[in-house]
Amino acid sequence: MSPAADVVVRDATPRDAAAIAEMIVEVADEATSYAFPEPLPDDPVGALWTEVAPGRVVVAEVDGRVVGTAKMGPNRPGRGSHVATASFLVARTGRRTGVGLELVSHVVTWARSAGYQGIQFNAVVSTNTAAVALWERVGFRVVGRVPGAFRHPTQGDVDLLVMYLGLPRA
Amino acid sequence: MSPAADVVVRDATPRDAAAIAEMIVEVADEATSYAFPEPLPDDPVGALWTEVAPGRVVVAEVDGRVVGTAKMGPNRPGRGSHVATASFLVARTGRRTGVGLELVSHVVTWARSAGYQGIQFNAVVSTNTAAVALWERVGFRVVGRVPGAFRHPTQGDVDLLVMYLGLPRA
Repeated sequence: MSPAADVVVRDATPRDAAAIAEMIVEVADEATSYAFPEPLPDDPVGALWTEVAPGRVVVAEVDGRVVGTAKMGPNRPGRGSHVATASFLVARTGRRTGVGLELVSHVVTWARSAGYQGIQFNAVVSTNTAAVALWERVGFRVVGRVPGAFRHPTQGDVDLLVMYLGLPRA
Repeated sequence: MSPAADVVVRDATPRDAAAIAEMIVEVADEATSYAFPEPLPDDPVGALWTEVAPGRVVVAEVDGRVVGTAKMGPNRPGRGSHVATASFLVARTGRRTGVGLELVSHVVTWARSAGYQGIQFNAVVSTNTAAVALWERVGFRVVGRVPGAFRHPTQGDVDLLVMYLGLPRA
């Protein structure tokens, strides 16, 4: 797959559930980027990858095949709801193709147009350098570091990062 | 109420629900320390102040009256479950009496004996200086700061702090 192949990001539908579940299982098996429940719940999409309005779930398609997904919404209710959050999954076969960049760019555009003041990622695994570099490329900065908060399968206890992108009004 | 009056910290029971609900409403009305949903859910204790094992909810009693509560448990599932988190409420009538210190000390003792590697507070309102000072007094340190992530009712958008206490094995 060539970099930046024709990636289409669209709202997820119930028919995407199987593809999203497959990505959750794949990423859970790798165990290097999310603190998912172990074992995974019976309905991983329902339990882990669902949003209610104003939140959204989108998928990224390449050649009509779902190779990535993002969920997004307010990071906290009430007096914290002006800051958004988001999470991402990219299928192993979809990596290094620009899918992650398309997804995060979609989230930034969404958050800006929905009037959020910023986007916070709560728990980026510090050793997931491809993700950290991608978030930094679109402007996110590390604003927190929790020591050893992620039990990495091969690297021991590694830090979790809090990352933030401010979205000042034009 | 004198400082460090006889504070008893014990597991919460269903009979404590009304007292806990009252504290949630009080703290939500103040709107200076938690990003609670607005409006509060119909069953605030069920929605906001319940834990499943290995998590726990405790209350602090002074003279047989519930004046504070804490909930605690793993901060994340799976590969993040070796770090605990906790939240606290102290009734206005119970403040400056040592109740907060008793509650956080209880949480630290619990987390240590349950084998947690540390305790993380995810969203401490930076202007809640009494709380920040108390957490620092028992050893917590600020490890992250999210700019303007809490919409304070009188001070504008103020930072949310991530705080952490490591619990090295003896």
